[in-house]
Amino acid sequence: MMKILDNINNPQDLKKVEKECLPILAKEIREKIVATISKNGGHLASSLGVVDLTIALHYVFDSPKDKIIWDVGHQSYAHKIITERKNKFWTIRTHEGLSGFPKISESKYDAFGTGHSSTSISAALGFAVARDIKKENYAVVAVIGDGSMTGGLAFEGLQNTGHLKKDMLVILNDNEMFISQKVGAIAGYFAKLLTAGVARKVEEKIIRVVNRFHGAGLPFRKFIKRAKVMLFPGMLFEEMGFTYVGPVQGHNINNLIAILKNLKNIKNPVLLHVITKKGKGYTPAEEDPVRFHGVGKFDIETGKTAQNKSVTYTKVFSDTIIRLARADQRIVTITAAMPEGTGLDKFAQKFPDRYFDVGIAEGHAVTFAAAMAVAGMKPVCAIYSTFAQRAIDNVIHDVALQNLPVVFALDRSGLVGEDGGTHHGSFDLSYLNYIPNLVIMSPCDENELQHMLKTAFDLNKPCVIRYPRGVSGTGVVLDKLPHRLEIGKAVVLKTGNDICLFVLGNHVNACLKAAELLAEKNINASVVNMRFLKPLDVGVINEMLAKTKKFITVEENTLIGGFGERIKSLLCGSEAVVECIGLPDKFIEHGSLDVLRKKYGFTQENIAEKALQMLRV
Amino acid sequence: MMKILDNINNPQDLKKVEKECLPILAKEIREKIVATISKNGGHLASSLGVVDLTIALHYVFDSPKDKIIWDVGHQSYAHKIITERKNKFWTIRTHEGLSGFPKISESKYDAFGTGHSSTSISAALGFAVARDIKKENYAVVAVIGDGSMTGGLAFEGLQNTGHLKKDMLVILNDNEMFISQKVGAIAGYFAKLLTAGVARKVEEKIIRVVNRFHGAGLPFRKFIKRAKVMLFPGMLFEEMGFTYVGPVQGHNINNLIAILKNLKNIKNPVLLHVITKKGKGYTPAEEDPVRFHGVGKFDIETGKTAQNKSVTYTKVFSDTIIRLARADQRIVTITAAMPEGTGLDKFAQKFPDRYFDVGIAEGHAVTFAAAMAVAGMKPVCAIYSTFAQRAIDNVIHDVALQNLPVVFALDRSGLVGEDGGTHHGSFDLSYLNYIPNLVIMSPCDENELQHMLKTAFDLNKPCVIRYPRGVSGTGVVLDKLPHRLEIGKAVVLKTGNDICLFVLGNHVNACLKAAELLAEKNINASVVNMRFLKPLDVGVINEMLAKTKKFITVEENTLIGGFGERIKSLLCGSEAVVECIGLPDKFIEHGSLDVLRKKYGFTQENIAEKALQMLRV
Repeated sequence: MMKILDNINNPQDLKKVEKECLPILAKEIREKIVATISKNGGHLASSLGVVDLTIALHYVFDSPKDKIIWDVGHQSYAHKIITERKNKFWTIRTHEGLSGFPKISESKYDAFGTGHSSTSISAALGFAVARDIKKENYAVVAVIGDGSMTGGLAFEGLQNTGHLKKDMLVILNDNEMFISQKVGAIAGYFAKLLTAGVARKVEEKIIRVVNRFHGAGLPFRKFIKRAKVMLFPGMLFEEMGFTYVGPVQGHNINNLIAILKNLKNIKNPVLLHVITKKGKGYTPAEEDPVRFHGVGKFDIETGKTAQNKSVTYTKVFSDTIIRLARADQRIVTITAAMPEGTGLDKFAQKFPDRYFDVGIAEGHAVTFAAAMAVAGMKPVCAIYSTFAQRAIDNVIHDVALQNLPVVFALDRSGLVGEDGGTHHGSFDLSYLNYIPNLVIMSPCDENELQHMLKTAFDLNKPCVIRYPRGVSGTGVVLDKLPHRLEIGKAVVLKTGNDICLFVLGNHVNACLKAAELLAEKNINASVVNMRFLKPLDVGVINEMLAKTKKFITVEENTLIGGFGERIKSLLCGSEAVVECIGLPDKFIEHGSLDVLRKKYGFTQENIAEKALQMLRV
Repeated sequence: MMKILDNINNPQDLKKVEKECLPILAKEIREKIVATISKNGGHLASSLGVVDLTIALHYVFDSPKDKIIWDVGHQSYAHKIITERKNKFWTIRTHEGLSGFPKISESKYDAFGTGHSSTSISAALGFAVARDIKKENYAVVAVIGDGSMTGGLAFEGLQNTGHLKKDMLVILNDNEMFISQKVGAIAGYFAKLLTAGVARKVEEKIIRVVNRFHGAGLPFRKFIKRAKVMLFPGMLFEEMGFTYVGPVQGHNINNLIAILKNLKNIKNPVLLHVITKKGKGYTPAEEDPVRFHGVGKFDIETGKTAQNKSVTYTKVFSDTIIRLARADQRIVTITAAMPEGTGLDKFAQKFPDRYFDVGIAEGHAVTFAAAMAVAGMKPVCAIYSTFAQRAIDNVIHDVALQNLPVVFALDRSGLVGEDGGTHHGSFDLSYLNYIPNLVIMSPCDENELQHMLKTAFDLNKPCVIRYPRGVSGTGVVLDKLPHRLEIGKAVVLKTGNDICLFVLGNHVNACLKAAELLAEKNINASVVNMRFLKPLDVGVINEMLAKTKKFITVEENTLIGGFGERIKSLLCGSEAVVECIGLPDKFIEHGSLDVLRKKYGFTQENIAEKALQMLRV
């Protein structure tokens, strides 16, 4: 049977569809998304939630002339399908296929690339300002989720926009639960907007406010109380200089089209509050949007995903932190809106009073933790490596400068795979190593992670543990109890005099296997698990220098400013020859971890080959 | 004559003073501050503005048990005088003297160290949460300026506080103009709070809102309009979960004491809006608070400061950007609340439509610039090196990943002197070098800065120019016109075969003079002005390696991850011996630039001595 989607390759085609048929088109797009993501994995729930809004946007606005900016961008699948990428959609998130996020270099319809949260308002304002300076004429629309609105950057964007009063539309896509659950006053505020006039709590609060004005009588106060809620919804946005419109239902395409057409004529900053449902149209995702936020392959019929049987880094972090927190009341945990991803959801169940989800607010997470450390707690901030980039000043200025015992658990360090360039944790060793007072470590496997956590909490200093995304664990057997490691001390796993492999982090195992491959060719390699980038074990480096002059360093981090360069600079002036395996000086593309690790030289064969090349010289 | 201040060494002493005498004490403290800062330089206007508030706070609260957290901290002089540092106050901002900012290591009364803006609410929440977990009993007070409130971090702190509903007081110190002038919607909002019920604009806006509700008649609308403004001041903070109190006059000590005593009993988050005057009590500072924000030595009688006669980096940046912008309509400039400090104030006068002060919002500044670049403009973000730490993710994720032509003018790179550890630009080479796609340069003098700016705008790539605080210029003669430099190309200034000095940035001149000192001892040194950290001129390194095996690198940046380590890692495996001059792996203390540069080895004598040591080996 012919589908409506068959005739749609770009927004111009979309505009030819009869309005009555748009809901059918939405259904077809949802089916395509579900079918594709069931094979490729991806951000399903959020993309399904905005299919109707996406259709309405492209129906009313003229992309690429008009600029549509997707905050985070993981909800842009329908946008990609509508904008000339339908036939490539099956490649999404695969190596050399479509990106899972908007990307300027991928399509003229992607006005601004994203991946991290809360950038869209700032970007939209940039377009609006440039347009007016150049006396051009186009619309600018930012689509931002309620979760992203909790980030300070969104606030900075809102308030600069309100000040400059540019013609610009911000669509608040309120799906009533962002990545995990509502947190922060803003979330409460949104909830209030949705229930204006009925929520008891709101009324109580207003009574409190009104009661401070003793002059007015009770009936007057009651009246004011209702008037305020009914007449001034969105006052927070109005105070920021926006015209607030909403809330409106986000799955009625024709209603959305009518509203957007009207808003096109308002030449001020407008905030349109749209209510959508995550996972809309696919029952398993509607029922469990957290699991279907970022999902691997799944069975369309049942919604079942493959169970990961081995123990991952995230799981070990999750279990160990609970175990340590049982013994030490001072341990508190902080996440920036990633309870499931970091494994802190289980901690939250056990110790709800010692767990803090601060919203998508990494900077606040770190400064908040710093003060808790001053006040005698032992905070751990569990943040993905790529998102911790947003809190570097807080690490420097609030934690390290004051030498406070905050533990940073950087999950998703190194390559993350399919999420690609915006999400790889390629830089953390480089953006941390130069910070005074930090201890920086990286475990060789899941078992060592538990010991490093124990070590970190016993240290009484700022401390970072970086560990990779655990798609599947290495299958290592875990020691029964976490124990303390000696600070700044490497472990020599194997001794050989032909060449020495210094490894920091997750490729220790590959190096051991590479050493076995080399042994088959009668080459004896040393393998050293460095454990610490800072303090660096200079002793073991000199010890190895007494055995051999050939060295290979291995790290899943960009080479500039990382572990390998540090070793090279230490060995400069000696007779040593050092080759570094790590990520090159470019933004790494997306693709499966297997594909990327092979491409960038992290397999045992890659490593053995590099050693052979060096020895041939 | 005996002064009240003579008997006050700590907050306990203060509490013994009769309330009626407190205004006299305030006057004495102001005199002490003016007398000291007229000799040492410092943040005068903001500190004078909060003398009364500081006295009231220490009168009502019990520091150090109660925690008083100063945002930014440059207003903490009266606090320091009251809290056991009166007799050391004459040392403020001098090497090994008192810090110009709160510092945990300096005093038990400094609850949390600061220097950068907008951290106080997050920190206060950390204390409040820890207190409640530990079932302790103390008050937590954050004092934050209206300028700092524009930062996204403050918003993140506010909204997490509103959510957690902790007992905590935030004092909004509204001096009706922060560092330079009100910017952003928040500033407008504060202004509105101050003029509730009278400002025409507010009324117009409310009419607009009310008009959207067609059901209500005109008299009703008029009533609502007034009711809203009068009955719900501070609604924005109320919406965030705070009880808003204010605005109150901030120079009536006894009134402040009465209010603070009352607020002590409210166990919710409270926001107290206090109105103060910058520079209060010292007429020259009241009249020109911008000049007296951060001021050098001045004459108390006249308020006159010494004129800087030589051309500084900031001045050259300011003049060159105006010159280039005249010829290129696409050039736009962005500052995060530092128009005077960056030299963009003059640009703002010439091109008001192409100048953007976004408030203390470095992250937004960069993302906003990125989108303007996509839209065809040529933005330059002028940010101090230390504050750019707050926008690293925006540089990575929004600018570099998309390879957009944004120019970053990083003023105050390297040592800044008296502001100390929180303000030194010690890290920028390290936090930037690993970012793909960036071009990073550093001029040897003011003249080269103008050429680098020209080069940067012609590049069509993300580009960073880092240059030092120009206390006094080098006196170099400026070329008439800025011209383009060859990308990634160093300049050999002097050739000699005994040793080679590779210099990046502002110590090229010292190296040339060091070479002269060495020549007196018959040692011939090469001196190379590297100009670019990225791309690095590998050709010139090899060229020099053909002449000598002894190298010294010089950079005013921390050594880890900086220029010297990069050279070392490139020369690893050769016969070269490399010594690096740069900042050690610690937070550098405060002190004059002369003292610090000598201490850390940047003088011509230091450099010559290092060369002699190497050649003796």
